[in-house]
Amino acid sequence: MLRKWRANIRKVEPYIPGEQPKGEKIIKLNTNENPYGPSPMIRQVQEDPENLRLYPDPAAEDLVNAIAAYHGVDRDQVFVGVGSDDVLAMAFLTFFNSWKPILFPDITYSFYNVWAELFRIPYKRPELAQDFRIRPKDYYQENGGVVFPNPNAPTGICEDLDFIRDILDHNTDVIVIIDEAYIDFGGRSALELLPQYENLLIVRTFSKSRSMAGLRIGYAIGNPELIRAIQDVKYSFNSYTMNRPSLLLGTVSLKDEAYFKETIDKIISTRTWFEREMKHLGFSFPDSQANFIFATHEKIPARDIFEAAKAAGIYVRHFSQYRIDNYLRITIGTDAQMKALLSFLETYISEWERR
Amino acid sequence: MLRKWRANIRKVEPYIPGEQPKGEKIIKLNTNENPYGPSPMIRQVQEDPENLRLYPDPAAEDLVNAIAAYHGVDRDQVFVGVGSDDVLAMAFLTFFNSWKPILFPDITYSFYNVWAELFRIPYKRPELAQDFRIRPKDYYQENGGVVFPNPNAPTGICEDLDFIRDILDHNTDVIVIIDEAYIDFGGRSALELLPQYENLLIVRTFSKSRSMAGLRIGYAIGNPELIRAIQDVKYSFNSYTMNRPSLLLGTVSLKDEAYFKETIDKIISTRTWFEREMKHLGFSFPDSQANFIFATHEKIPARDIFEAAKAAGIYVRHFSQYRIDNYLRITIGTDAQMKALLSFLETYISEWERR
Repeated sequence: MLRKWRANIRKVEPYIPGEQPKGEKIIKLNTNENPYGPSPMIRQVQEDPENLRLYPDPAAEDLVNAIAAYHGVDRDQVFVGVGSDDVLAMAFLTFFNSWKPILFPDITYSFYNVWAELFRIPYKRPELAQDFRIRPKDYYQENGGVVFPNPNAPTGICEDLDFIRDILDHNTDVIVIIDEAYIDFGGRSALELLPQYENLLIVRTFSKSRSMAGLRIGYAIGNPELIRAIQDVKYSFNSYTMNRPSLLLGTVSLKDEAYFKETIDKIISTRTWFEREMKHLGFSFPDSQANFIFATHEKIPARDIFEAAKAAGIYVRHFSQYRIDNYLRITIGTDAQMKALLSFLETYISEWERR
Repeated sequence: MLRKWRANIRKVEPYIPGEQPKGEKIIKLNTNENPYGPSPMIRQVQEDPENLRLYPDPAAEDLVNAIAAYHGVDRDQVFVGVGSDDVLAMAFLTFFNSWKPILFPDITYSFYNVWAELFRIPYKRPELAQDFRIRPKDYYQENGGVVFPNPNAPTGICEDLDFIRDILDHNTDVIVIIDEAYIDFGGRSALELLPQYENLLIVRTFSKSRSMAGLRIGYAIGNPELIRAIQDVKYSFNSYTMNRPSLLLGTVSLKDEAYFKETIDKIISTRTWFEREMKHLGFSFPDSQANFIFATHEKIPARDIFEAAKAAGIYVRHFSQYRIDNYLRITIGTDAQMKALLSFLETYISEWERR
């Protein structure tokens, strides 16, 4: 039946989240989760259930202070949100308010164009080079803002500070957002550039290196004027942004630097030997500074490997997207998980070659 | 320094959340929190800290199923979000997409005009009658949508189903949102009207009657087509909407109907005697079906009482807004808390009269 009320419903391209398979025996290497649990320190604390009756602190003061202290910035330089997706969505809405197109790579985090569409922000997506590197010159053109992840996703490629500086020097009239979701796995953060660039916003998450995807904690660091602007927008949506367990456990996790470093080192060393083994099996991939690699096989289509691995209970990520549909994004799990994947691949490839 | 990047920052009227005083001895009756803790059942369960490394279920399946079962609706009629503020913000964005003004009362939940401004939705605010009742005829005019809380906030007045039906019958071409944040404290829900009105969306929260403000859980119930539309918008922002502790504890709390009923009955009976005592002290207020009353004193300005109570460590809410600036919104706490407030008021009023 055609009812008039349908006419005013906002139409959006529905975003389809990655598969969340359930089951004990699944090896889940498809959503870049951390294979090690969060800091054991958070087991020592628990939000008093009695306190759940009370609203959370709308200013998230404890968590903001802890993040500021951790990075050596002022508390008025820190904005927190419900995962970096929330932080980035609010940043798009707050800072990309021009009629000129914003710029981000054609191959990058898949939410950027979703937010641009949702908020009716014009955008252009300069193509990555053949080797999947960002071409800085593409970002010299007039624009309404710039955003990219560093390391980029799903490529894992990390650019150095000279590269970031060059982009910033060519974009002094717009906000430049560097999405550092994966920076802790070997890259160098642009945080040290903040004193020189008042239009730089750096976005981070607790979901990867801090192993707290289940709590939804993200944050942004930038000059206080930017932080105030994004807070005003966020509080207009929902003044109690993060719930009590997130505020409490997020704050505690920042105190355990030893565990944080230890698990990151483990992931990096697993990545190193896993990359070597994958090369032996005929895979190639850009040099990764993230907790995943982006791999293609010399002979076998990525889609086939993806389906076969899934049937064997090993989930990796495949994107049916132009230019990258022959690649797999594989999260770095534990040594045991990666060995299981390698052993599956070895068998699969040798069977494939015998066909 | 005037930098061009400032030009494209979205300007919003910053929302100022209610005071969140800290301190042991404070009596906090200013944000309509529930004085009784959430169901003791939630103490028996706790999210395994190890699992916090994993993303939450993006479809929030367990919680959605539990809410659907609780209300006897289908699971595809339920949308969940980070508190009812998140649900309402998404509903505004999804359903109020017309160029005609949406309608809501001049005196009502203070976020409605904030969202309308944020999303550039035109709106009109028909005046409540002198007795603070909504005048149904004001909602017969052409519009882009209708939203109001029932019971209304901060008045506490609840309208019956004939009233709601009348509004719906005059608004078949737009979405009508009934915000039932306070419905469990004595009102009759419009849920039973859902089979007759496909354009009706009912919004609820776990923050008041379920005493879980600290977890941020809200939901909407409506026809599956509306639910799909709002999900698409929500997932465009952030596909992992609610964190693991919220999903787990929210689901468990729905199982404890006995505790739920018991605490609501306590609040209603406290409200009944508190209203009687307040009348003796010279206060008047509309009949409340919420966990607060909206009171004005026959002689003493509300602002003075507000300040004096605050100085004595008792927080109630005062709005510096035309027509209601001589009223106080007082949350119904425990008997002991309300006695403390009454005893303060008695002393304060008699001192005031001796001046």
